[in-house]
Amino acid sequence: MTKATILLAHGSSDANWLAPFETLTAQIQAGLNGENLMLGYMELAEPTLETCVRRLATEGVKDIDVLPLFFAAGRHLRKDVPQMIDELIQELSTNGHTINIRLSAPVGLEPEVANAIASIVTRKVKHHDSQQ
Amino acid sequence: MTKATILLAHGSSDANWLAPFETLTAQIQAGLNGENLMLGYMELAEPTLETCVRRLATEGVKDIDVLPLFFAAGRHLRKDVPQMIDELIQELSTNGHTINIRLSAPVGLEPEVANAIASIVTRKVKHHDSQQ
Repeated sequence: MTKATILLAHGSSDANWLAPFETLTAQIQAGLNGENLMLGYMELAEPTLETCVRRLATEGVKDIDVLPLFFAAGRHLRKDVPQMIDELIQELSTNGHTINIRLSAPVGLEPEVANAIASIVTRKVKHHDSQQ
Repeated sequence: MTKATILLAHGSSDANWLAPFETLTAQIQAGLNGENLMLGYMELAEPTLETCVRRLATEGVKDIDVLPLFFAAGRHLRKDVPQMIDELIQELSTNGHTINIRLSAPVGLEPEVANAIASIVTRKVKHHDSQQ
C-alpha cells in the first residue's frame, strides 16, 4: 500500500486521555477494508506523528493524509504541526524516501461534529433546567 | 433564573482556535428558549470559567452545570478543573453565595460525537485511497 492516513491527536501523559482515541481508532479500523490507518500523537505520548510517518515511509508509503482529531486549528495545527511535517519530509528525502504529507482541517470543524455537539448540549441544558 | 450551563473549552491565545467555539455556542443559544448558556475557557482566553461562575453567582444563579467541550478527560478535567471548581465554591461561599457546580463528562465521550468522527474519518480515508 502506498497510501495511509494518520489520525493526529494532541497527546497527553495521562492514559485516561489517550484511551478514547485508541477505542475510536479501533472502531474506525473495524469498518475499513484494510486501508492503512494509524493513530499518532503530536506530543506527550507514543507513537508520535514522527514515529508514524517514519514507520510508514519504511513500509513504502508515499502519500499520507494527516487528519487532526482537534476541535479547532490554533497554533499547534497552524504552526507546530506544519513545521514537524516539513522537517519530516526533508529528513525522509535525505534518506531516499520521497513522501507527500497533507495536513487536513481538524475534524471538529466538520458540520457533523458541530451538529452532534449542539444536539448533546441542547439536550443536557434542557434536562438540567427541567430538574428540581 | 437560578440555573445555568457553562460550556467549558480549553482556551488558547489564538483567536482562530476560539472562533469555532464561539460560533458553536451562538448556534446552540439560537435553538434554546432563553436557558442560561455561557462559553468559558479553562485558560489562556476570556471569559475564564472563574469569570463565568462569579458573574452567574452575582446574577443569583445557584446551580451550574459545566459541560466540557473536550474529547477526553485527562489531567485538566480530572484534577485542574475540579480544583478550580472547589476553590470557586469556597470563595463564593465566603461571599455569601451558596452555589452547586457539577462537572459533566466531556462531550467527546458521547457516542454521537464519536460516531460523527468515525463517519467523517471513514469517508476521508476511502476518498484518499481512491484518489490517483
